[in-house]
Amino acid sequence: MSTSFPPAPSLHEIKEAHHRILPFIHRTPVLTCQGINRLVKAELWFKCENLQKVGAFKARGATNAVRSLDSGQLRKGVATHSSGNHAQALSWTARLAGTTAHIVMPTNSNRVKVDAVKEYGGLITFCEPTLESRETTLNTVLQETGAVEIHPYNNLKIIAGQATSTVELLQEKKDLEIVMAPVGGGGLLSGTALACHYLSPGTRVIAAEPTGADDAYRSFTQRTLIPSVDPDTIADGLRTSLGSLTFPIILALVTQILTVQEESIVLAMRLLWERMKVIVEPSAAVPLAALLEGHAGLRGKRIGIILSGGNADLDHLPWNL
Amino acid sequence: MSTSFPPAPSLHEIKEAHHRILPFIHRTPVLTCQGINRLVKAELWFKCENLQKVGAFKARGATNAVRSLDSGQLRKGVATHSSGNHAQALSWTARLAGTTAHIVMPTNSNRVKVDAVKEYGGLITFCEPTLESRETTLNTVLQETGAVEIHPYNNLKIIAGQATSTVELLQEKKDLEIVMAPVGGGGLLSGTALACHYLSPGTRVIAAEPTGADDAYRSFTQRTLIPSVDPDTIADGLRTSLGSLTFPIILALVTQILTVQEESIVLAMRLLWERMKVIVEPSAAVPLAALLEGHAGLRGKRIGIILSGGNADLDHLPWNL
Repeated sequence: MSTSFPPAPSLHEIKEAHHRILPFIHRTPVLTCQGINRLVKAELWFKCENLQKVGAFKARGATNAVRSLDSGQLRKGVATHSSGNHAQALSWTARLAGTTAHIVMPTNSNRVKVDAVKEYGGLITFCEPTLESRETTLNTVLQETGAVEIHPYNNLKIIAGQATSTVELLQEKKDLEIVMAPVGGGGLLSGTALACHYLSPGTRVIAAEPTGADDAYRSFTQRTLIPSVDPDTIADGLRTSLGSLTFPIILALVTQILTVQEESIVLAMRLLWERMKVIVEPSAAVPLAALLEGHAGLRGKRIGIILSGGNADLDHLPWNL
Repeated sequence: MSTSFPPAPSLHEIKEAHHRILPFIHRTPVLTCQGINRLVKAELWFKCENLQKVGAFKARGATNAVRSLDSGQLRKGVATHSSGNHAQALSWTARLAGTTAHIVMPTNSNRVKVDAVKEYGGLITFCEPTLESRETTLNTVLQETGAVEIHPYNNLKIIAGQATSTVELLQEKKDLEIVMAPVGGGGLLSGTALACHYLSPGTRVIAAEPTGADDAYRSFTQRTLIPSVDPDTIADGLRTSLGSLTFPIILALVTQILTVQEESIVLAMRLLWERMKVIVEPSAAVPLAALLEGHAGLRGKRIGIILSGGNADLDHLPWNL
């Protein structure tokens, strides 16, 4: 990798991450669905991270980050702010490693995700749903506990961990023309892009994002990091801003960021439930939503899609709202 | 196999069936869930036939039956009466084989299943929801079309096909103490029992059935085939009676049939959705319901469970009724 390339995990570091986390995570299946292929006129391979431990790809990055700590660091615990799946993943993997996760969560977090963090043994401190309140509250927690902060995405160990999902996808399906992932903070997307860059350089990486939270699209287009302000989308995992580490990787390696309407997200989510028989949360349905909207360049292609998570609230399904 | 054994597919015929259907079906994943294991205090491996083509194990048997016909038979089409998943499976596999499926369905069939049959190209004739009306209507269809009847379960090719799910499960997980399956007409259960008998004779087969449709339990206990009369259960795939071919195999090879309450079925279904992130229909949740009810002999065991299907109606979820 040339010296002008932004700081990023090397192929060796991604392989090490994969080796490190393998005893703890699921090797998730890659599913196909002819009915959906016919509908979107493309050939899709879905990497089912919704079937991952804690119901999301976040188990990969969190496990890599926690298992990379030395015993002295581990003893004091780990801490983070997260709207949901990273919080669950960190709580789960911290307990498995014999330590404690301190979780700062906004008060408007999805109930299912809050309950899950508690069940996995995470210690929750609630804060206002603003980036400022999250950061202030987290700093207080860090000072009080001496815990190590594990940022949900702006962390090279996290990025390396998230890359391993695409490593497995490319092992299973070698000739993908495109890999698609949703983009929130960019941990999954930057990891996906790195894995393709190293292992299948001919494969283009295309991200998808809700129009109501299109900070990544705008940042990508204007080549400057624009924070997410008042995001308005059902895809609660994608409301965050890109990070100083994830954005440069995305700028360097991602081909395109597509934006999609809320109605398409709900339609794509329902399609995955009804036809592929898997539970996905709204964020995970965003790449398929882009296919349903018929964006140019996707038709007829062999496309891998990372289904990022499955932590949906069964009592509040979007098609019943 | 001794001469006193009832008519049943041989191991060779089951292996032939597997070879015959492999190009057309999914090799479905086997999933595990630590959260569910902790809850029921057993180690479970779920064979996900809900992720099978047409969303149910029925794709296996129907494909084996249709692909075993000669070209003259195939030309005239196939026909069946079915409350749902077999109808979808036969329609799907008939079209794939270049022929037509004539489907007799009761008027009270699940809407999702009726729509799916139409989408797969099946030609539906509706009848009253009684066994008599089904059979009379089917006979008319058979006379008019010259089609070959493919019974949903009382057919050795169907039984051999359904056995292949357990063949794959046992390939993946060799030391199961118990395999569990739901029982309706007994096609899946007899196939499951045969596969264990041939390939893992130390593995016991335990069936589960709704208390509101406990004809298999009563038949098994009294060792005489008692038809299902006015079954009352949410598990719409399990309302049928055992058949003259499936019942003797079940009597010979199944260890036990457990009955479960409706509330346990709904709880188990929701648990699989919420924790394992897969869509299952009520029938598929019946074995886990038996575990939730704490039936003796299951605790602490290594248990394979066939998740039979995923064709749930997303607009009428049982926890919203």
